[in-house]
Amino acid sequence: MPFTIGLDYGTNSARALVVDCTDGREIGTAVVDYPSGHQGILLDPSNHHLARQSPADYLHALEQATLQALAEAKSAVKGFSADQVVGIGMDGTGSSPIPVDDKNVPLALSDGFRDNLSAQCWLWKDHTSIPEAAAITAKAKDLRPQYLAKIGGTYSSEWFWAKIWHCLKTDPEVFSAAYSWVELSDFIPSVLAGVTDPKEIVRGVCMAGHKAIYAEDWGGLPDKEFLSALDPRLADLRDRLYDEAHDASVSAGKLCQEWADKLGLPAGIPIAIGEMDVHYGAIGCGVDEGTLVKVIGTSTCDCAVVSADKEVADIPGICGIVKGAILPGFFGVEAGQSAVGDIFKWYVEGVLGDVELHATLTEEAARLKPGQSGLLALDWNNGNRTILVDQLLTGLMLGQTLYTTRSEIYRALIEATAFGARAIVERIREYGVPVERIVCTGGIAEKNALLMQIYADVTGCEMRVSRSAQSCALGSAVGAAVVAGAHPDFPTAQAAMTGLKETSYHPIAGNQEIYDSLYQLYRQLHDSFGGVETSADLGRVMKTLLAIKAQQSN
Amino acid sequence: MPFTIGLDYGTNSARALVVDCTDGREIGTAVVDYPSGHQGILLDPSNHHLARQSPADYLHALEQATLQALAEAKSAVKGFSADQVVGIGMDGTGSSPIPVDDKNVPLALSDGFRDNLSAQCWLWKDHTSIPEAAAITAKAKDLRPQYLAKIGGTYSSEWFWAKIWHCLKTDPEVFSAAYSWVELSDFIPSVLAGVTDPKEIVRGVCMAGHKAIYAEDWGGLPDKEFLSALDPRLADLRDRLYDEAHDASVSAGKLCQEWADKLGLPAGIPIAIGEMDVHYGAIGCGVDEGTLVKVIGTSTCDCAVVSADKEVADIPGICGIVKGAILPGFFGVEAGQSAVGDIFKWYVEGVLGDVELHATLTEEAARLKPGQSGLLALDWNNGNRTILVDQLLTGLMLGQTLYTTRSEIYRALIEATAFGARAIVERIREYGVPVERIVCTGGIAEKNALLMQIYADVTGCEMRVSRSAQSCALGSAVGAAVVAGAHPDFPTAQAAMTGLKETSYHPIAGNQEIYDSLYQLYRQLHDSFGGVETSADLGRVMKTLLAIKAQQSN
Repeated sequence: MPFTIGLDYGTNSARALVVDCTDGREIGTAVVDYPSGHQGILLDPSNHHLARQSPADYLHALEQATLQALAEAKSAVKGFSADQVVGIGMDGTGSSPIPVDDKNVPLALSDGFRDNLSAQCWLWKDHTSIPEAAAITAKAKDLRPQYLAKIGGTYSSEWFWAKIWHCLKTDPEVFSAAYSWVELSDFIPSVLAGVTDPKEIVRGVCMAGHKAIYAEDWGGLPDKEFLSALDPRLADLRDRLYDEAHDASVSAGKLCQEWADKLGLPAGIPIAIGEMDVHYGAIGCGVDEGTLVKVIGTSTCDCAVVSADKEVADIPGICGIVKGAILPGFFGVEAGQSAVGDIFKWYVEGVLGDVELHATLTEEAARLKPGQSGLLALDWNNGNRTILVDQLLTGLMLGQTLYTTRSEIYRALIEATAFGARAIVERIREYGVPVERIVCTGGIAEKNALLMQIYADVTGCEMRVSRSAQSCALGSAVGAAVVAGAHPDFPTAQAAMTGLKETSYHPIAGNQEIYDSLYQLYRQLHDSFGGVETSADLGRVMKTLLAIKAQQSN
Repeated sequence: MPFTIGLDYGTNSARALVVDCTDGREIGTAVVDYPSGHQGILLDPSNHHLARQSPADYLHALEQATLQALAEAKSAVKGFSADQVVGIGMDGTGSSPIPVDDKNVPLALSDGFRDNLSAQCWLWKDHTSIPEAAAITAKAKDLRPQYLAKIGGTYSSEWFWAKIWHCLKTDPEVFSAAYSWVELSDFIPSVLAGVTDPKEIVRGVCMAGHKAIYAEDWGGLPDKEFLSALDPRLADLRDRLYDEAHDASVSAGKLCQEWADKLGLPAGIPIAIGEMDVHYGAIGCGVDEGTLVKVIGTSTCDCAVVSADKEVADIPGICGIVKGAILPGFFGVEAGQSAVGDIFKWYVEGVLGDVELHATLTEEAARLKPGQSGLLALDWNNGNRTILVDQLLTGLMLGQTLYTTRSEIYRALIEATAFGARAIVERIREYGVPVERIVCTGGIAEKNALLMQIYADVTGCEMRVSRSAQSCALGSAVGAAVVAGAHPDFPTAQAAMTGLKETSYHPIAGNQEIYDSLYQLYRQLHDSFGGVETSADLGRVMKTLLAIKAQQSN
């Protein structure tokens, strides 16, 4: 009876899952918070764009989470032993690159750089590199338009090259000391495999393709001429990165003795290639052609797959279409909203100052009808990842009266994220990616029936929730099961190991109609403030909202 | 040594002030909350536009506040006796019309109508009459454009005829039972004077001119042909209203025996004509040509005067220019913001749910630099009275990130009201009304140095605060002093009885510059959402705010 371990490195904590490969049963699980910074994130009070993370925290969590999950499995399932673990998989946030020395050791683990923010992992949501991202976009538009076509037309400040270049410009000492840079999701597998030369890390195509402009079409990473046009030192770095990246049919290596001992696992078991958390999350949700998977957390990632045999057009504003990125044999399509759970958290904890209020507000908001509050909001508190690809956007709310309640505001924020979700669905459908149903995963999707119903009403799609509370970790356990040979391929492994909860949220016709009207207004604001529409007539927006409010208050 | 009593009927309470006519010393004061409804306001949970008030509360407050103020004066000043009171004045909110029977008794005091919301006083901020106001505007545009010229081009739902017409349409029984309608500020003086026939009420030109389209130019109230075009029953009502309205040089009558007994005052002392609270407030603040008085409370009223000898152009969007409305011998110019204190109150009490937070938020907000929050808001939670004259507008806030704090929001709301204030100052200056300094009154102006400094920085004007904490009541005491002959005229009475606090708020050059930039963005939003600009390019608004934020965060 084979088991695999799936590790999932989130924004504030890492978790490990021990999974039965025959039926996906999760027999042991553990979550370890990153000990450093504010909720695991290293911040700079003078620059709200900065978000870093300690590589030491990652290693701490690797050991602790795995050991705890194994201990739980042992006590939960009679006869289970760590010897039955046949493979291990891992996913992480991204793009979260880490500067490492020539022994594949993070600079931040050395005395000289321990307290240097530039030497830490540059967390996905670090936006310090906005100018560099803009310059990469501009340069690529000029010199290599093909680079932009697959990433929605705009290179993001959240991504690999922008971050490294920003480091080069603002902390050249760290840049010089870094022999190479490794994505978190390539780094942990390389640690498990005992890789001591960055050139020997087996890199995943998921991060490479989505974040580092890697594609077979142009021979891997961006060519040195292009990188030189940014900065010659980036061209030099290219030689110390990688020439090839792989899909999940390839293993990232075998568990080395050192880590086998630390974790109490059999040495030599295969390690699945690292993928972005949400990509393994999509697998853990049973993604297939026609299913959009939404991993709803602090932000949202939307994943879909299209057979690699098909022609897939470049989709403006969609941040990635990469062959093999999610499932081998498919194009992976990735979109996302820069903040979803983070917006609710900001409002409830940051503004209202009371974490206990989430439940009350949800209850109160559920008693409101669509449009009844008269409020309309944009979901841009952390910029807009898809479809505008613009970090320099901010939140907006309108329609407030002297009687607007805190739960009306809460509901308007949920609705704003639903409208953002609809904008993505509409865009990818328009370019031929089928969306027949939406499967969600993440605590919000599981706990917040109100949000799920609003998303169904706003998008017009059936909404389902993944059976697993840990779909990302489950997906990496599925990946491990495939490289370990417990299942012959991903579809078979997914059929055996993943599933959906029974509850299905169907669009309610009357609500859908109101939300169609509100979405039109949302798009007016979206296009005006997003710079798409440059001669907007917004004089009716407030009046239309008031009219809908009056209609819905009866 | 003569004294007068000034009464001030606010939105939630009434106050009485006993004032020494020689130097304005306030020797006794009392505040009485209206006992009914929510903070004195009768609401309808199904219609947030509705705001009514109980006439019985007014009579209760008249007796209690006067008696308590006299008692306090007696205990505070040795030798003071009620016999030394030579006159009494009163002001109130408006337009707040009350339906009365043919004995000048409010319908709401009779058993049949006690619980009928239509039979109560229709409080100034009642916005149920939006359709009727729009219809009056449309009809006047067509038939009597001169009516609109003096009221800024738009008749408001807050005003006399719109409210009465709405009553006629929605509760014809109350309309039929009402022999006449009396503004609160005409009603209380008429009660004190013992008037038992509505036709004999001495009406003030202030309410008549600003709210009821009264002007000498067209022979008083709107003519019957025009009123018939609205509804013939309104034309019939005109006969039971009034032909003439008066400025503050005329007395509203003499104190009748019944109320002299109730209040313990000498019968026969003169009663000043009733004015709108803010008009007597302007007098209590020492208004003269060149001084804009801002009475900052739940909403804001801005008052200025221009010599009646001058030509004053009609000013678009300014809700009233009425000869004699504030000071005899001057045009009174009235503008206002539909919500100021109410916005802060809504945010702190309605959204954050903690009345205690005002002080903390003010302290925190004071530590921020202009533009540092990246936020920008519109002050339209209760519509826009001046300069758009549109109740069907709502609040807006943009610039929120995941790090936006509650005090940043608080400051942005204060700034929004300051921008609204600047729009008014710019508009009236443009039409030749001089504004050299701004004198404020009201609790917010006294207590909130942050707000005063922001207003100075945003408007570029010196800001001062009236010496009296009860400028409106003081102004009505000044009015009483003039009709009682304690002073020969208003300028003399004002010089003796009013004054300013020492603190002066001067614009700070660096702040002014930032606020000039922010005001340009405010006007972009204002004009777009207000329907003035119909082909707006708002794609730079958020980016400009972020740039200012970055600059101000250093």
